[in-house]
Amino acid sequence: MDDCIFCKIANGVIPSATVYEDEEFRAFLDLGPASKGHTLIVPKKHAKDVTELDQETAGKALVLAGKIGEAMKKGLGCTGFNVVANTGVSAGQTIFHFHMHVIPRYDDGEKIVEWVPGSNTDEERAEILDAIRSAL
Amino acid sequence: MDDCIFCKIANGVIPSATVYEDEEFRAFLDLGPASKGHTLIVPKKHAKDVTELDQETAGKALVLAGKIGEAMKKGLGCTGFNVVANTGVSAGQTIFHFHMHVIPRYDDGEKIVEWVPGSNTDEERAEILDAIRSAL
Repeated sequence: MDDCIFCKIANGVIPSATVYEDEEFRAFLDLGPASKGHTLIVPKKHAKDVTELDQETAGKALVLAGKIGEAMKKGLGCTGFNVVANTGVSAGQTIFHFHMHVIPRYDDGEKIVEWVPGSNTDEERAEILDAIRSAL
Repeated sequence: MDDCIFCKIANGVIPSATVYEDEEFRAFLDLGPASKGHTLIVPKKHAKDVTELDQETAGKALVLAGKIGEAMKKGLGCTGFNVVANTGVSAGQTIFHFHMHVIPRYDDGEKIVEWVPGSNTDEERAEILDAIRSAL
C-alpha cells in the first residue's frame, strides 16, 4: 500500500513516537491524544479494518492492547483504559489501515468514551435481533 | 464465578437477546443500547478484562466483532461500527467480566465514541514515551 500513511509509520518509513515494536506490530503515540498517553497499535501488514484481520493478528493486537494498558497504569498513573477500533467513516475511522486505540483514563471525570444508554421495546428488540441474526 | 452476571448470561443461566452463540462466546443485545443494535460479545469463560484474555480467545472475540459488525451493516443498514472494550471503573467498565461492545453507527451525526484531539509538546511526548516504555 504505497499511499497508506499507517503502512509507512508501522514499517518505519515515517518516524513515530514508538511505544513498542515487534516483527508484526508497531505501537506509537497518537499525535492528537484524547488523553495523556493515547497510543495506537498498528499491524505492519495492511488490513483496512477489523473485518480484514486474521484471528492470529487480531489476538496479538488485543493482547498487546492489554499489556500496553497495564504499562500505562504503572508508568503514567492512569486507573483504566479504553480499547477502541473504529470501522467506517460514520464510526470515526479516518485512516483505512486497521488501528486500535488504547486510551488511558484518569480519575479526572473526563468524558472520552461514553454514551447515553437508550432503550428498546420488546418488539423493537425482537426485530433488531432478527435483522442481525439473519445477516450473520 | 457464582456471582458474575455475565458468566450467567454467557452460559445461558440468565436469558438474553442472543445474536450469536458458540461453545466459547455469546453475543447479545445491550439492554441500554448506545445505538440501534448495540451488541455485547462475552466469552463464556470468566476473565475480568482484556488483560486476562489469552491470545486465542482475544483473536476469536475481535474477529467475531468484525463479523457481527458486517451483519449489522447488512441487516440494520448501519454504515460503520465501533468496537470498544473498557478496562477499569475510570474507563466506564461496570461489569468485571470481559465484554466487547459492537456499536453500530448510522449516518445520523450522533456522537457516540468521539473525543477532542489534544496535543503535546515534544518534551511532554518524550516523557510520556519513556514512562510507558519503561513500564512495558
